[in-house]
Order: sequence, then structure tokens, then C-alpha cells
Amino acid sequence: MVSAARIMQRCDALARHSEQPGGLTRVFLSPQNRAANELVLGWMREAGMRAQVDAIGNVVGRYEAERAGAPCLMLGSHLDTVRDAGRYDGMLGVISAIECVAALHAKRRQMSFALEVVGFGDEEGVRFGTTMLGSRAIAGVLDPASLEARDANGVTVKDALRQFGLDPLRVPEVARRKGDVIAYAELHIEQGPVLEAEGLPVGVVTAINGFSRMRATVSGMAGHAGTVPMHLRRDALAAAAECVLAVERLAKSDAELVGTVGRIEAKPGAINVIPGEVRFTIDIRAPRDELRARAVHDVSEALEAIAAKRGVACKVEMLQELGVAKCAPWLMQQLERAIAAEGVRVRRLPSGAGHDGMAMKTLTDIAMLFVRCKDGISHNPAESITEADATVGARTLLRFIEDFELPA
Amino acid sequence: MVSAARIMQRCDALARHSEQPGGLTRVFLSPQNRAANELVLGWMREAGMRAQVDAIGNVVGRYEAERAGAPCLMLGSHLDTVRDAGRYDGMLGVISAIECVAALHAKRRQMSFALEVVGFGDEEGVRFGTTMLGSRAIAGVLDPASLEARDANGVTVKDALRQFGLDPLRVPEVARRKGDVIAYAELHIEQGPVLEAEGLPVGVVTAINGFSRMRATVSGMAGHAGTVPMHLRRDALAAAAECVLAVERLAKSDAELVGTVGRIEAKPGAINVIPGEVRFTIDIRAPRDELRARAVHDVSEALEAIAAKRGVACKVEMLQELGVAKCAPWLMQQLERAIAAEGVRVRRLPSGAGHDGMAMKTLTDIAMLFVRCKDGISHNPAESITEADATVGARTLLRFIEDFELPA
Repeated sequence: MVSAARIMQRCDALARHSEQPGGLTRVFLSPQNRAANELVLGWMREAGMRAQVDAIGNVVGRYEAERAGAPCLMLGSHLDTVRDAGRYDGMLGVISAIECVAALHAKRRQMSFALEVVGFGDEEGVRFGTTMLGSRAIAGVLDPASLEARDANGVTVKDALRQFGLDPLRVPEVARRKGDVIAYAELHIEQGPVLEAEGLPVGVVTAINGFSRMRATVSGMAGHAGTVPMHLRRDALAAAAECVLAVERLAKSDAELVGTVGRIEAKPGAINVIPGEVRFTIDIRAPRDELRARAVHDVSEALEAIAAKRGVACKVEMLQELGVAKCAPWLMQQLERAIAAEGVRVRRLPSGAGHDGMAMKTLTDIAMLFVRCKDGISHNPAESITEADATVGARTLLRFIEDFELPA
Repeated sequence: MVSAARIMQRCDALARHSEQPGGLTRVFLSPQNRAANELVLGWMREAGMRAQVDAIGNVVGRYEAERAGAPCLMLGSHLDTVRDAGRYDGMLGVISAIECVAALHAKRRQMSFALEVVGFGDEEGVRFGTTMLGSRAIAGVLDPASLEARDANGVTVKDALRQFGLDPLRVPEVARRKGDVIAYAELHIEQGPVLEAEGLPVGVVTAINGFSRMRATVSGMAGHAGTVPMHLRRDALAAAAECVLAVERLAKSDAELVGTVGRIEAKPGAINVIPGEVRFTIDIRAPRDELRARAVHDVSEALEAIAAKRGVACKVEMLQELGVAKCAPWLMQQLERAIAAEGVRVRRLPSGAGHDGMAMKTLTDIAMLFVRCKDGISHNPAESITEADATVGARTLLRFIEDFELPA
């Protein structure tokens, strides 16, 4: 049997490894990442798995099949967080998967396929600005250039891997062969309001929305806040403010679209100086790739027009784009059977958030099980789930594993 | 005779003491501040002055009168800079004043009054967010609470003074008695376009515009950039963007008014998180106090209305306010006589920028001599003056000193 109490305790235990007191921020290859990995390695071994940290910093545990070396069903989620995060986004999926393996191990049950649980080291991309480094490495689609990305202190992923005790030259070895992974299934909190609104503890994901992430740089003219008349200014922040509102306006133009400016920085950044340069990020997501492409185009055009009107320059760079990742119908059906067997009405829904499945899809078929969260709140310390829902989530995942049928 | 070549060289020499290479940033009580002070102390002593650093970190040099202990005419400006600053804002006034004293000392001329030259340690207020700590201490109007202000690392002014080798308990001793300072006169670059437009190397300041500095905090709701639909968001940055544009719009409503948002910070500040809190600064200036008061009121009302419309909270705090500081007619007349004697047409103009005279005015009468700068650019590495204009500035200041007449 799965213990939801233990799942909740372990989410709490991981949440104590944070770079700031009284909150949760745990970024890739940080000391807090190391401490979390140690905890997870211990839980995996306790659950009967061989476990280790791979060359890109993922924690990987393997529960052997009846026949050693058989292909695996891969489960998992990520162990890194956004800044000032909640404690379930990512971690719940890793801990629930370990709990399922522990339940099998307790009754000495092995399957015809192996089970692997992965705690991905980087999904959120907070530290280096590029997401899903862990799952992209396992899927074999990690561009080596990504290892040259730098954090705010100028440290590259490569340097950070070395400081973490890992060998960046061995990252390519992390990639799995297609036949070795039957499927990837991830349990995750919904991070949205749908399941709560319908009174359901879990739901089946149909597809993960695609996203485009950009960085905009507005260059105006710095100057003295007291001496430059308003009509002679080329204020980079006033221009950027118009851009932020343009992103919001365009994102509101279609109910399926969302657009966010999450970071902004004005330079030189003094109370008495007109900003000469402003950088900000743009994140655009949609369940249809053509809708997102149109929005990216419209935003770029709007920013150019604002810049031209104000006599400033505006450069927009694409940082990362991922198309819609559809979940495999044969896996969705098996998840739906497990949900129904738990006495829950089956609800299908798309994922507004990105997930490691987007990268894993290039390696194997993917599926996701969503667990209800309070008020749809995530990426926020107020993120919350109930122990009862954690129970349904873990029981459904266990049933899915135990009844798992290979595709025809 | 004054040497403008030496003045330019010394501006260059001070500019080398910067916290960043390839630019100029020198904040109060920093290692770069110490190095600059050492240079200035040496130049003052070379010019025949007794010189030392006072308890608030000002460099003060005294050139004795014929009769020792006589009241002084105080000259000077500041030695701190904004971030990514020019090399003349502040420093030119200190160096030109030392040059004038050196010229008197070279011909062994003493006046019936002493001359003091002050290099104020903090005028810009970059490090602690409160400006003119140095001149307020000398004027005897430094609120002790200002010494509790903290920099970005949480270090108080008091702590920083101690780390600089100064005793914060002795700061009150820095205050001068009214009778001991006959007047305060400051040479400074214009930081605006007026003198250049009229082809004049120098001009006489009539008054320093008043300013109001505020900090606004917008509190919305952080959330996941992919899962929260646009219509359910309470995005603190989108609201702040509207506020930035409101400040700009209101500042444009009167040609005498300027308004600037110079700093902005969005939290948590991740590409994939809707900002939950945004802080920004507002700087409003005007040559008439009632115009400025009305603008402050209108901005506060506009911000409240934006916050109410968007369902976010907006708090506005006043950080610092200073009213218009008028220059003394009797000093202006003497500066004008000196300018005319140098063969330059006399042009009167207000100062859009704040200056130490605003604080000094509570102690004594003030005057300012402006030197033309290129394109009106200041608070910017492109700040520039000509050696020819530096010559006219220093010659005018020297003539003003040599012909100085005490008020009737």
C-alpha cells in the first residue's frame, strides 16, 4: 500500500532544502540541489532501487524487472524549483513514483519491465535560463551549446557540473536508446483550476501546451532625471512599460493564449537617472502551435512599433521554443482505466504548464496524471494539495503500473 | 593662473577610481571613495590648505584668512557618482575650487575671509537611497535617522562609517555655526542643454528645482505563467507598467515638470512566473513647489486608480522631499560681475538637477556657477566638457573669490 502521509512528509522534507529561509528556492546544481538529491537517493534505495546521480545531475533509480536488463517504464518529475516556489511542483511526482516502487518492493513484486524513477535536476531553468536540461539529456536532444549557458554570476552549466563533482564530457552518455524506454509517465500537480472546479482529485493530460520564450532589450538614452525635459527623453523604461502592456493585450486577444513578462531590469537603475537600457523576458504559450506562432509574430511587431514611435531600439531574441507535446492515446487509456478503477470520473485536460514530457516525447511516448491543487495556485508558496488527493494520485499511478500493458 | 589642463587631468584621475572597469561608479564610503579622497586631500595640501576627512566622510580643506579663524567662503561640490556616471558631475566643482586656491597660494595671497573647499561624500544618494548626507551634516540638518538607512546589502550608514574608520557619534560635530560660513558657492556642469544652445561657456543659477522622491510597491498575485488564464491574473508588473506610463503622462502635462521612474524590480523575477510584487521609484521635480505638490498628488491618485482597476494593492511612500532653493541675489550679482569681466554674456538659468546647495541653504546663502556640457548629457558616460569651458569656469570662480565683497 502507498502511504500518502509519507508522501506529504517527504515533500515537506525536501522543502527544507532552500536557499532562502522561510521560503523555497532550489536551483540546479546548488548546494540545496545536492542535499535534495541525497534525500531522494536514500528513499530510492530504501524502496529497492539501484540509484545514482547521472552526468547531467538527474537522480535515477532503477527497480529491476523479473528479467534483468529489460526495457523500462520511466516515471518521474523534477527536483528543482522556481524562486519562492511551492513544495509540490515536481517533487510530488518523484516522491509518488518512489512510493509506488516501495509498495511493489514491499510485496516483492517485479514486473516484466523495469521501473525507473527520475528526479530531473533542471526543469524550471531558473539558474541558467534554459529549461529541461535533465530530460533533454536523457532524451538525447540536449544541444551541447546549452552547457555553455551562464547563470547570473557568469558560471556556465559545464563549470557548475564540474563544481558539483560531475563530468560534463560524460553528459552524452546519459542519453537513452529508443528501445530501452517503453514510455514516460509523470504525476504532477495540475497548477490550474480545472480539477478543483469539477470536484475531481485527478485527471488525464491530453497534451502539453507549446511555449516560446524571448528576451527583449530596449535601448534608449540614459540621462539626468532633473535636467532632461520630457519631450527630449528616450526613456527605455517608459518604452518597456508600453511593451509589457502590449504583451498583455495581445495575450488577451485569444482565450487559449497566455503571455507573461516575468523579469525586468532597468539600467543604470538609480532613482535619479532616466533608464538607458531595459531588458525583459516574454513567455507565450498556447495549445495550438500556429496560434502561438502568430502571437510571437504580433508581439514582435508591436514592440518594433513602440520602439519606432519612441525613438528607441528594441531587439527581441528567441531563447527557447517547444511545440505542443501530445500524450499517447494508448497510455492515456491505461491511465483512464486506473482512474476509473479508483472510482473517480475520468476528466481529460490539457497542461498549460511545460513539463519534462516535452523533451521525453522525442525519445518515447508520454503520459501525465494531474493531481488537483488548491485554487489553481502554483509557482507560489501558497501552492497546496490535500493528503487525500495525494492518496488517489499515488494509488492511481500504482494501479497504472501494476496493470500496465505493453503496446501491441 | 588657473590650469585647465590640470583640472581636466584631475577629473580623469578621479574617474579611474570606479567599482567597474570601463565605466565610472563610485558610491559613498566605498573603497573607491577612499581612494578618491586620498587624491583630493593631496591636491588640497599641495594648494596650501589644511585638509582632512570629517566624521561624515566629506573631504574638507581650509585656506586660512589673513586673520586666522575668520569666517569662510565655502566652495565645493561632491565626489560620489551615480551608476555608470560621467566624470565631471560633482568632481569638476571640487577640482576647480582647489585650482582657484592653488592660484591664490602661488602668489601668496590671502583674503580677509578664509576659503574652505569641500568634497561632499554623498550627494547622489546611490548607495543608501538618501541624498546629500555630507552637506546636510555640515548644514546641521542631518536627521540622525538617516544614519540608519541601509544599502542593498543591509549595511547601515553608521556601520559603513565605522568600516571607513570614522566615528558616527561625532557626526553632529560636523555641523557649522551660522556665523562661520559667509556663503556657499558651487561650480557645476549644467547637466542640461541651455548654455550650449546659447553658445555660452558659463551661466548663473537662479534657483535649484525642488524634488520629491517616492517608492511605490505594487502587490498582486504570483502564479504560473502557463496555467493562469489572462482574465484571472493579478499581474503586479502589468499594473506597474501602467503606473510608469501614468508618471510619464502626468509629467508631460506641464513643460516645467519632469517625472522619472529610474528603478524597477519584479519579484519573484523568473521568466515563467507571473510577478507577484513590483517595486519602483518615482522622482518628480519642478521649479515651483506648488506645481510639484500637485504632480505628486496626481501621480498618487493615478496609481491608486490603476491598482483598484486591476485588483492589486499599491503603496506609495515618500522617501525625500526638498523645496525650491533660491540662490542669493547678492551672490548672483557678484558671480555676474565676474562672468562679465571674463567677457561672457550673463545668462541666468534655473537648475533642473538637485545640488548640495539645497542643504547648505539652511546654513547660509548659496550661489551656483554652471559650466556648459555637451548635448546636455549627464549621469551618463558620454558626459563631456571642453578644456576651454573649464578655463572660463575656473577663471570666473577665481575672479569671484578675489573680488568677493561681504554683504552689507
